[in-house]
Amino acid sequence: MARLRRVVLDRLMRYYRFLGELTAKRPVQTVTSAQIAEVLDVDPTQVRKDFGEIGLQGMGRVGFDVSEVCRAIRDALGFDQECEAVLVGTGHLGGALLAYSGFARYGLQIVAAFDNDKRRIGGKVAGCAVRSARAIKPFIRSRKIRLAILTTPVEVSQKLADRLISAGVKAIWNFTPTHLTVPAGVLVRNEHISMGLSEITYHLKQ
Amino acid sequence: MARLRRVVLDRLMRYYRFLGELTAKRPVQTVTSAQIAEVLDVDPTQVRKDFGEIGLQGMGRVGFDVSEVCRAIRDALGFDQECEAVLVGTGHLGGALLAYSGFARYGLQIVAAFDNDKRRIGGKVAGCAVRSARAIKPFIRSRKIRLAILTTPVEVSQKLADRLISAGVKAIWNFTPTHLTVPAGVLVRNEHISMGLSEITYHLKQ
Repeated sequence: MARLRRVVLDRLMRYYRFLGELTAKRPVQTVTSAQIAEVLDVDPTQVRKDFGEIGLQGMGRVGFDVSEVCRAIRDALGFDQECEAVLVGTGHLGGALLAYSGFARYGLQIVAAFDNDKRRIGGKVAGCAVRSARAIKPFIRSRKIRLAILTTPVEVSQKLADRLISAGVKAIWNFTPTHLTVPAGVLVRNEHISMGLSEITYHLKQ
Repeated sequence: MARLRRVVLDRLMRYYRFLGELTAKRPVQTVTSAQIAEVLDVDPTQVRKDFGEIGLQGMGRVGFDVSEVCRAIRDALGFDQECEAVLVGTGHLGGALLAYSGFARYGLQIVAAFDNDKRRIGGKVAGCAVRSARAIKPFIRSRKIRLAILTTPVEVSQKLADRLISAGVKAIWNFTPTHLTVPAGVLVRNEHISMGLSEITYHLKQ
């Protein structure tokens, strides 16, 4: 299978979430590309093309088998492979992510939280023990952690990213507004909390 | 000017954030579409096309004037129009959004927080007084609030969205995993905290 581009991965995630919502409301066996396209504001041809990229074929007018689509997406995106992550920075946003219960669906488990702040170290945030940032390297090495979630202040983000990567981390989920520099082979996914605002301010301006 | 599509708005936001980061590091007068394209992994033609949509023209090889680009984006997206918002649901994520200081750049100010939980009402979250959800309607009406940020539990989201809209809210920034049903003319922008995970789990699977 060809390597999937980021835009395709994002759309597959949206389809997966939508099908999860749909089946949570009532039992649904099949879905058409037109149904998905309408709700998610995507072209139906695009939906079928994306499905084709992960080996899914529709059944003519009947559409697609929902459980087969969900299984194929989980498989393509790797949701069934358990992934242990650490979280660095236990401020408000870090706490919100630690408290969020929805990550398990995607195979993600946050197994440790780290902070620089002595007032926080030794305490708990959303039920998770907070460890000293000095313990990051040995922890990641011994547990072979490959993913770190970064929710630290801007001024320490790059330094902590370097430490995480030198310990073996292969992907950083970056919730800080810092542009991180990382070596080849390491993925940085930037989440910008303000991203959606452009659509809102534009709408309210009209 | 033709109505801008959501994908264009999202890209304009990315350009704006990137130029903000760039100029924060050192004074920069001009930028080329190729520079922007390389960092943000977009086609240079796409960058010029998006700029064209908001009336920007490059100066040949020199590229674009950075401050002019930023001004045009702010103007097109409405960042210079002050926008007062309320936040409903003061749990972990609500608290993180209340504590976030970056919204002011986009003209957004959260002026009140509401909750159903008696233990929270009357207290403060990130410096903001928490009011009873019963006070939503009169507050929104008297202050003519048009934007609400929703960070409530799933089971009450639709009910609260209905209340917000009946009081006059025209846009809901939805951080709950609920698919909201709203009347025409009201915008819902859904933020899914797990969205970026697909790219990460896919990368770690390879």
